[in-house]
Amino acid sequence: MISDTAFAELSSVLETRLTRSKSELDQHGLSETWFPLTPPEAVAYPESTEEVSQIMKICHAHGIPVTAFGAGTSLEGQTLAISGGIVVDFTRMNRVLRVNDADMDAIVQPGITREELNVELRTTGLMFPVDPGANASLGGMAMTRASGTTAVKYGTMKENVIGLEVVLADGSIIHTGSRARKSAAGYDLTSLMVGSEGTLGLITEMTVRLHGQPEAISAAVCSFEEMGPAVEAVIATIQVGLPMARIEFLDAESVRAVNAYSGADFPLKPHLFVEFHGSEGAVAEQVELFGEIIHDFGGSDFEWASKAEDRNALWTMRHHAYWACLALRKGAKAVVTDICVPISKLAEAVEETAQDIEASPIQGPILGHVGDGNFHAILLVDPNDTEEIKLAKDLAHRMAERALKFGGTITGEHGIGFGKKSLMDAEHGAAWAVMGQLKKALDPTNILNPGKLIP
Amino acid sequence: MISDTAFAELSSVLETRLTRSKSELDQHGLSETWFPLTPPEAVAYPESTEEVSQIMKICHAHGIPVTAFGAGTSLEGQTLAISGGIVVDFTRMNRVLRVNDADMDAIVQPGITREELNVELRTTGLMFPVDPGANASLGGMAMTRASGTTAVKYGTMKENVIGLEVVLADGSIIHTGSRARKSAAGYDLTSLMVGSEGTLGLITEMTVRLHGQPEAISAAVCSFEEMGPAVEAVIATIQVGLPMARIEFLDAESVRAVNAYSGADFPLKPHLFVEFHGSEGAVAEQVELFGEIIHDFGGSDFEWASKAEDRNALWTMRHHAYWACLALRKGAKAVVTDICVPISKLAEAVEETAQDIEASPIQGPILGHVGDGNFHAILLVDPNDTEEIKLAKDLAHRMAERALKFGGTITGEHGIGFGKKSLMDAEHGAAWAVMGQLKKALDPTNILNPGKLIP
Repeated sequence: MISDTAFAELSSVLETRLTRSKSELDQHGLSETWFPLTPPEAVAYPESTEEVSQIMKICHAHGIPVTAFGAGTSLEGQTLAISGGIVVDFTRMNRVLRVNDADMDAIVQPGITREELNVELRTTGLMFPVDPGANASLGGMAMTRASGTTAVKYGTMKENVIGLEVVLADGSIIHTGSRARKSAAGYDLTSLMVGSEGTLGLITEMTVRLHGQPEAISAAVCSFEEMGPAVEAVIATIQVGLPMARIEFLDAESVRAVNAYSGADFPLKPHLFVEFHGSEGAVAEQVELFGEIIHDFGGSDFEWASKAEDRNALWTMRHHAYWACLALRKGAKAVVTDICVPISKLAEAVEETAQDIEASPIQGPILGHVGDGNFHAILLVDPNDTEEIKLAKDLAHRMAERALKFGGTITGEHGIGFGKKSLMDAEHGAAWAVMGQLKKALDPTNILNPGKLIP
Repeated sequence: MISDTAFAELSSVLETRLTRSKSELDQHGLSETWFPLTPPEAVAYPESTEEVSQIMKICHAHGIPVTAFGAGTSLEGQTLAISGGIVVDFTRMNRVLRVNDADMDAIVQPGITREELNVELRTTGLMFPVDPGANASLGGMAMTRASGTTAVKYGTMKENVIGLEVVLADGSIIHTGSRARKSAAGYDLTSLMVGSEGTLGLITEMTVRLHGQPEAISAAVCSFEEMGPAVEAVIATIQVGLPMARIEFLDAESVRAVNAYSGADFPLKPHLFVEFHGSEGAVAEQVELFGEIIHDFGGSDFEWASKAEDRNALWTMRHHAYWACLALRKGAKAVVTDICVPISKLAEAVEETAQDIEASPIQGPILGHVGDGNFHAILLVDPNDTEEIKLAKDLAHRMAERALKFGGTITGEHGIGFGKKSLMDAEHGAAWAVMGQLKKALDPTNILNPGKLIP
């Protein structure tokens, strides 16, 4: 509980930018998945690092839980204040502070969304390519180690965040990393913070890597009669080292959802959506080689989208696939899964998962970033039917076990939050306790996003 | 001091593989730079993870300092037992445990050297490209976050270590990472361990990323009249996104050293050594474009080495450049520097450094991995002349300040050890104390490589 004294102290820092209005509390208590509404006690909208530091000092002194909030698009409850306390909403810290064209990096505040950043970069010839689908905030993407459709070429947030300004639990401010392309100067605190889901500190500034806007882009769609050969074609493509910018798999059920939601008319078969980036010559060469591979695995002819508007339509469809899947069943919520396996095990993992879902009463389209070995089953449930939720969670649990059996991970990009906490021990064993020791060292009173990620 | 009881306990685990022979102690008390001989009290040669765990349990119980040793090629005293205790030499844990061709990764023991690993990989079509010059052990390379000539294309150890087995201070064994290409499952312990210089745990097994052996390789050498345009040509090359596999700068003094040491006859001018990897077509395209850039900056025509033996001779010369520089002055040792700056600041940083050295009585050839913004001045000193060592260290200190002024780092690839500890505060400020807190959490009695890296 936030005491009146503590609230008054926070108010003296934030004035009207600290609120307990029911609508704002509720808005920050929502999630994109099946979790019930969990409003915090108050919402703070800081405008500077100094304000974030003061918030933390006050919360530290009073033992108030602090949960960071960017765009609210996380999928494992990362932004829900499950232990009460305040949510720190970074919407007002959303500026680009500097773009270093020559070094291809930018310093931004954490509340900026990836689309906002790319709009600002439009005239520079540079782009920030990490694309989890949702128009997430960069701070949130860093904190969940997000990736998405383009990671196969450009890497995840791990590879694209090179430095951070972080406010720690006690309000102290640290800077991690540098603008150099590499460093061997001590522990990699940047990588420790990326993926820590707001449990070790709050990001107030970040230096991100930018990439050149490609000279040429080609995107295409092709279908397969069966799921197996589609995935095997991806494996073969990865293994010959063809540098795809995106390669997405959608099973027949996902395609049905996309058709219905976006008014498309793809055949109801497993599909690959792909994109190549590079020089005109390189893209042409890649497209040709990829065509041969697809042909070998019995894929259909491609429908190519070289015009920007056609490509945008295609990727908008892909980005809306989650909501398209939800719309397959009225009133449904999703138990979202997110396993990632070594490429060589991808076909087995996808097929076993499809059979498992098939054998259950749960509807669960499968789609994913197969170039990374990462895929999702969107398990549709009636949020009021506890039995159905249990069945879906059992399916999700078996998927996670399958990922581990194949040497993979329980989450490729969504993170842990509290949704996947029960699986952490299976993946990490004794290393999970080590995460707990690190957490305790940096946040001894456990006020930073308590109840998430850590034992 | 290792008590007789402790020694007996360690002996019961290691038998004859625990030694106090003077020659072996001395051999493990040497360093590649100007540090005086620092023999440990004993050397252990474990053969398994279980033995390493038992060693740590005994040392933990008795408060014995433990310093890990791979090939002994580190440059900042990382392997020196400056607080006494034992050195754990991983020479006998040097096997390749598994190569996963399809996923392009390998599981190896930490004592294997990069050359040994590449010999084992020769028939697979795969390679481990990280190349710091010295034939270092992979464990040591991971622990110093090493990189070298090929990082500009293939990344550093940070990007190429994807999972670890680590024995912690108390002897417990953890596994970090997975074989998936990405994961969002909790804190990135792999990245925390990589670069931690044996202060957080001992690596007993590692999963590393492999890369395809390139279809075509072209290497070349060209010279410039002045240092400035050579470096500016590199900056331009990076900025157009040309994917070089290697791009090395040597100033005229380094070239003189290489000529004398390796019997070459390069003109006594600043040089670039470059290499391109890729398909035949891609390499040809890159070579042509690079030629145009070099021409624009007044570089000489290239001498191309397309035959493997000519390329090997070239890179052997580059790899021996450190010893070549040492040989410029009889009996000299080196104060080695290793700054890394944003690419846009590289020319300024190199030129300011050259002027600073020029204005001092110290001889200091400059060379480096300029594609990463990383370069070294090899400051030659008489190891018995404290005044000269002081002058060299002052020069090194000013280089580090210069790196920080330009937004860079005090060490691109050599790490901290105790040689650069005094500079950590300037680079990290309050974040250095955070490293200390993490260290204390995982090694509360400070037995793992005490005196290195941490405040």
